[in-house]
Amino acid sequence: MKALRFTEGELRLADVDMPAASDEALVRVTLSGICNTDLEIVRGYAGFEGTPGHEFVGVVEESSDAPELVGTRVVGEINAGCGKCEKCVAGDSRHCPDRTVLGIVGRDGAHAEFLRLPTRNLLVVPDSVSDEQAVFVEPLAAAFGITEQVEIGPDTKVAVIGDGKLGLLCAMSLGLRSAGVTLVGKHPGKMAIARDLCNDAVMLDEIGPEMQRSFDVVVEASGSESGFATALDLVRPRGKIVLKSTFHGTPKWAAARVVVDEITIVGSRCGRFAPALELLADGKVPVERLIDDIFPLSRGVEAMKRAAEPGTLKILLDASK
Amino acid sequence: MKALRFTEGELRLADVDMPAASDEALVRVTLSGICNTDLEIVRGYAGFEGTPGHEFVGVVEESSDAPELVGTRVVGEINAGCGKCEKCVAGDSRHCPDRTVLGIVGRDGAHAEFLRLPTRNLLVVPDSVSDEQAVFVEPLAAAFGITEQVEIGPDTKVAVIGDGKLGLLCAMSLGLRSAGVTLVGKHPGKMAIARDLCNDAVMLDEIGPEMQRSFDVVVEASGSESGFATALDLVRPRGKIVLKSTFHGTPKWAAARVVVDEITIVGSRCGRFAPALELLADGKVPVERLIDDIFPLSRGVEAMKRAAEPGTLKILLDASK
Repeated sequence: MKALRFTEGELRLADVDMPAASDEALVRVTLSGICNTDLEIVRGYAGFEGTPGHEFVGVVEESSDAPELVGTRVVGEINAGCGKCEKCVAGDSRHCPDRTVLGIVGRDGAHAEFLRLPTRNLLVVPDSVSDEQAVFVEPLAAAFGITEQVEIGPDTKVAVIGDGKLGLLCAMSLGLRSAGVTLVGKHPGKMAIARDLCNDAVMLDEIGPEMQRSFDVVVEASGSESGFATALDLVRPRGKIVLKSTFHGTPKWAAARVVVDEITIVGSRCGRFAPALELLADGKVPVERLIDDIFPLSRGVEAMKRAAEPGTLKILLDASK
Repeated sequence: MKALRFTEGELRLADVDMPAASDEALVRVTLSGICNTDLEIVRGYAGFEGTPGHEFVGVVEESSDAPELVGTRVVGEINAGCGKCEKCVAGDSRHCPDRTVLGIVGRDGAHAEFLRLPTRNLLVVPDSVSDEQAVFVEPLAAAFGITEQVEIGPDTKVAVIGDGKLGLLCAMSLGLRSAGVTLVGKHPGKMAIARDLCNDAVMLDEIGPEMQRSFDVVVEASGSESGFATALDLVRPRGKIVLKSTFHGTPKWAAARVVVDEITIVGSRCGRFAPALELLADGKVPVERLIDDIFPLSRGVEAMKRAAEPGTLKILLDASK
């Protein structure tokens, strides 16, 4: 089968063996989405080698546990736990210490014609959700998962730092809970989309003194040291900063401000898929507006380059081509 | 009156005017305690000039609001709010944006014969609490205040990083809530005291792999970049780190770990005095064990030098001498 492979520091399209037979379900990938984490992986992040990709929608080809799933459209939770530890037994493998993670840790991912995942990781996609929407379930779950960690009500004043895909998904989905969500960005092209899709959008250099120290919750979705500094500028005393982007290296931070103003910082990674699928089924978040292009998988290397260009939003891969 | 003064980068004992007449209460200081923040102030932290000192016990000399308080022993909340803003009206001036802070921000402090504070800031000290105990109310409130920010139950596994005064007070007071509190330090002299006063005490270089990523809550009370790194090593996925020490500068941090393991970081500054006074009245925390020496205020400069020596615990100043 075709797969995008990252090995020995090089990304290439390869013809590889099908995933080895196992008791996990076999999924034929329909579409996969290129995430910033994929771009980081090909820069050497996390030391991953193999097939990247963790955002997908596909069709079940085999499942020994649930043969009735064969032929259905599915998405899949990306953390595959050991199934035995306390976390897994409690039904949440996202923090299993021995987990593998699709296309990120110890498990080949979705930029391929086929992938395997435990059947328990799969969720059936409702008919009302298109493939182009369903492929956004993973990042939308990550964005909307913030609501399970931090209370966001109708009057909560929220700022989202970062006008990339993740920032937009955060602002769009949190806007369903609060009318007071402001996206803060700095790329004119993306901000035009942001103004269309989000409650409010403000350019970084337009932040006035009245906005400083005024937000109950600030979501840092830029993954940059300067983004975190902006978050500290915007959050009110005793407010919360949600760290949503994977930071690399060891950024500096003004820790004294965190102590004096008793700010809470909440690390946030994966969310649950079911609530995100519901949002898509109800047509609540027009995720498809974030698609910039769909490349055939056979042009995957080129697609990754395109995804890395400044200003690009979501690039999808069509695994059938 | 005598007062320890920090002006133009120099600390000296001076004979100064009594605090100007005002509608605030006048307190004759009995004892004041030297805090690490005082040591930082004479290194230029926060740009404070004037009389440092924010830990005290004293006797009310004047109060226009509550003349019945004259002659009673009191301690005092150190944040003096505007009295009008949302925070102040809700009864918590600790985050009033226009607050002054005794001996730290815009208000002369306690290393003097007399000080002024709003009467509403004062709490009467019960007879069962000695002056030597009462002078610890402020740092004990700061330590025990953690229980109002983070849930600590009988089974919560807590590590406290730092064997200084603040770390010991945190470990001692949190030990009243949980049997699973471990103090982590590196100074043999202080650790001997820690072993006596805390549930458990472990030298930094004795931390084994079984302790890593195992604590529900880690309190960072060392104020050092390496202390925060240790806290990240010890906290479990989805656990909480309480930042208790004022950090200076901009330490680096492994932000990716915070995101991937969804760790929460809680900045923590001042606590409420009433619960801390109750702990002292009930004889629950033997704070007086932390006193290394009591200097007369007239030898205050020498006392500050002593307090800055490695291994020193609490140094008090007797304002009557």
